Amino acid sequence: MPLDRRTLLTAGAVLTGTGLLPDGPAIAQPAPAAPPPVTATLARYLVQARYEDLPANVRKEGTRSFLNWMGVAVGGSRHETVDHAIAALAPFAGKPEANILGRREKLDILNAALVNGISSHIFDYDDTHLKTIIHPAGPVASAILALAQHRKVSGKDFLNALVLGIETECRIGNAVYPSHYDMGWHITGTCGPFGAAAAAGKLLGLNEQQMAWALGIAATQPVGLKVQFGSMTKSFHPGRAAQNGLTAALLAAQGFTADAGALEGKDGWAQALSRAVKWEEITEGLGTRYEAALNTYKPFACGIVSHPAIDAAIQLRGENSLRPEQIAAVTLHANPLVLSLMGKTEPQTGLEGKFSIYHCVAAGLAFGAAGEKQFQDAVVRDPVVVALRRKVKVQTDAMVATQRCDLTVTLTDGRTLTRHIENAIGSLEKPLSDAALEAKFTDLATGVLAPARTKALIGLCWTIEAAPDAGRVAAAAAA
Amino acid sequence: MPLDRRTLLTAGAVLTGTGLLPDGPAIAQPAPAAPPPVTATLARYLVQARYEDLPANVRKEGTRSFLNWMGVAVGGSRHETVDHAIAALAPFAGKPEANILGRREKLDILNAALVNGISSHIFDYDDTHLKTIIHPAGPVASAILALAQHRKVSGKDFLNALVLGIETECRIGNAVYPSHYDMGWHITGTCGPFGAAAAAGKLLGLNEQQMAWALGIAATQPVGLKVQFGSMTKSFHPGRAAQNGLTAALLAAQGFTADAGALEGKDGWAQALSRAVKWEEITEGLGTRYEAALNTYKPFACGIVSHPAIDAAIQLRGENSLRPEQIAAVTLHANPLVLSLMGKTEPQTGLEGKFSIYHCVAAGLAFGAAGEKQFQDAVVRDPVVVALRRKVKVQTDAMVATQRCDLTVTLTDGRTLTRHIENAIGSLEKPLSDAALEAKFTDLATGVLAPARTKALIGLCWTIEAAPDAGRVAAAAAA
Repeated sequence: MPLDRRTLLTAGAVLTGTGLLPDGPAIAQPAPAAPPPVTATLARYLVQARYEDLPANVRKEGTRSFLNWMGVAVGGSRHETVDHAIAALAPFAGKPEANILGRREKLDILNAALVNGISSHIFDYDDTHLKTIIHPAGPVASAILALAQHRKVSGKDFLNALVLGIETECRIGNAVYPSHYDMGWHITGTCGPFGAAAAAGKLLGLNEQQMAWALGIAATQPVGLKVQFGSMTKSFHPGRAAQNGLTAALLAAQGFTADAGALEGKDGWAQALSRAVKWEEITEGLGTRYEAALNTYKPFACGIVSHPAIDAAIQLRGENSLRPEQIAAVTLHANPLVLSLMGKTEPQTGLEGKFSIYHCVAAGLAFGAAGEKQFQDAVVRDPVVVALRRKVKVQTDAMVATQRCDLTVTLTDGRTLTRHIENAIGSLEKPLSDAALEAKFTDLATGVLAPARTKALIGLCWTIEAAPDAGRVAAAAAA
Repeated sequence: MPLDRRTLLTAGAVLTGTGLLPDGPAIAQPAPAAPPPVTATLARYLVQARYEDLPANVRKEGTRSFLNWMGVAVGGSRHETVDHAIAALAPFAGKPEANILGRREKLDILNAALVNGISSHIFDYDDTHLKTIIHPAGPVASAILALAQHRKVSGKDFLNALVLGIETECRIGNAVYPSHYDMGWHITGTCGPFGAAAAAGKLLGLNEQQMAWALGIAATQPVGLKVQFGSMTKSFHPGRAAQNGLTAALLAAQGFTADAGALEGKDGWAQALSRAVKWEEITEGLGTRYEAALNTYKPFACGIVSHPAIDAAIQLRGENSLRPEQIAAVTLHANPLVLSLMGKTEPQTGLEGKFSIYHCVAAGLAFGAAGEKQFQDAVVRDPVVVALRRKVKVQTDAMVATQRCDLTVTLTDGRTLTRHIENAIGSLEKPLSDAALEAKFTDLATGVLAPARTKALIGLCWTIEAAPDAGRVAAAAAA
């Protein structure tokens, strides 16, 4: 990433003299200024921020984030990744205070934070802070829901902590994105510990010094390399981030010290994990501008670059009552990233289907959906779906923005249907409706929880703010 | 750090095209070659390596590493850092299978690995792999001694695993040192998880694929930023490294997958945590060249650059039966790092004394020792010591290597004594004797264990290789 002058000036104190700046053709360097004390500023804000100060739209988005997280965690809970994690760690787990969502087991709160965070990321179907590609709820909600089963927490305090945790991780992500991500870090796992520590620290009533320590102990435990994408360890990242942040807050509450400037200090987090930093992203507008209001939710259980095409396919199917046998040819006009990220032409498994734009479009046309069900192995191998996906052609065009596309379907009777997508469903501009979030939740919970329990759980999530004891939602999500 | 051409060539596949190389004046770049499969090579070696293949000197050094680690862990066990960690985490700990060294508590093996790793680093008095400044035993021994209390392990297997773990972390450290360290990472915490995973994985009998997964899960959990130096979180690093590595091995044993090339892959550990890499350091001479044979042990409980001066002071005192009141002036001729790292002139606390070359020399002259006792607050404030340290002058000279110095003591009777140190005691060239290691251990254990128990424990450490059940040593180290 090219370093612009503003970034250099802002980042001066961290980056100069550390060897992090490229040597060679000199950019005139300002005298290194001390970086702003962002850790302390953030800690003060976190300690002072009150539920009553949250704007209504932020409370609403926090609640939607929580609902979506619960749905994906319940949905992912029966995957073998979760089985393996529990088999490995349960023999060493402590007091079974906290529920594993969607299952019968209870574990100690630190292990529950880990396992529920893993479950929530299994299908790669979770929430997304689009500016950073952070999946915000995983690390934060997994940590504080477990904590809320150890000490009673009101729904208001819970929602406030959730928002503050999301705010913390997304702001830190904004400060180092994209160079941090480009270096190889899976940003949900590296920023997540800060979010979990902030939220858990808020519920533990940490003072400013303890909160700065909690952030410091979180800083020293980043989790997650992108090399792990495609293995179970990818889902481990948000889970371990939750566990690390909760550990940090618990330690800080007992007086375990860390450097009070671990984010910005020499040899600190930003220096080691990024090549450029925008400190103001962490502290500007705290309490007035909310990143937590910018959370989005995937309508489809696959990479976000395919979402405009799937949206178009579903719209055309719905409006024209299309059946697969009517379709002669399909042409997608889209950004080149669609092929570079999802260009698999002959997927053989559900997981491979998630990396095949051909399968995604075929699923949208055949089923009017692209939820987790449409990425099961049997669906990917279904002859009808296979025949349909082979009719899909992709034309790439760098002038087409990633959130847009044009889809053209030629029918066997010679008719041509086209649909332009300006913003896909699930984007900030065209957010998923509450009803669609509920439908996604219900779809994910099918086969895990009985329908009546699912319905009740959805209700508890919507009303979390009014709950006298937020931790009870976890028990309601047990199998 | 300047990248030399050999490093560039070796590192080509990881560093080119990732933006990690400085832009600008072009170094002619070779076509990117795929990096060697170091993760798989290391995994294969670890699975195949047998105790019977270890050379005698490596077994001996492994035993010395274990003894030294046990001494510093017992010595540090009563520090408030350990109290706070136990207070925070014991409420969530599992089956109390593993002893906390030097204390009465038992915790589950994952928490015991963490806490014993913390104890071992409290006094910054542990072992040092000089090429990388890694403290090798902390992450590895803390993990496998705890594991050996969960499943019975013979002394031979234990020693083999210890050596393999040390080998793994030090070789990976060699591959990325110094750029990794310069970025801000506390190398013991970042390479330590590999060592702990390798050693624990060996004891768990992992196959090659599982061992590669274990290394991968370790890779995704680096711990430790240098910004934490001076806070309790510094000691947290080797402890959490032990716990993360043990967790990685336990998960891999249950089939929890990770990328099989997490060290060298695109968006892998080396790419994210280093700016240059020498892959051959990881794999060349595996089984014939042992980094584990290069471990050293601090004779003095303070920064290693002060050790030549302390060595000289102790020698002059001993040979001349010096008393403080005989000393009129002291002049140290040494490398400038001595002042830049340890230039504190008026330390007020024991911890500050560790950063004062003046106190260090005074302690050596006054007591003939610079163990943990000589860095207690009362000693640093002792009027006799204060008066003596004020007589110390330091002349720096970049031509004097860091392991050397000249110390001149002028006596009140006008005589002048001088001592040149070519290699300080505790260096590779002048290693601490077995007797000196025992004396260090005894000094550290005083006040923690009864003298008879300390003596017995030292014996158990020396004979660990012959133990039918290595885990019993941990019980013998309980208070």
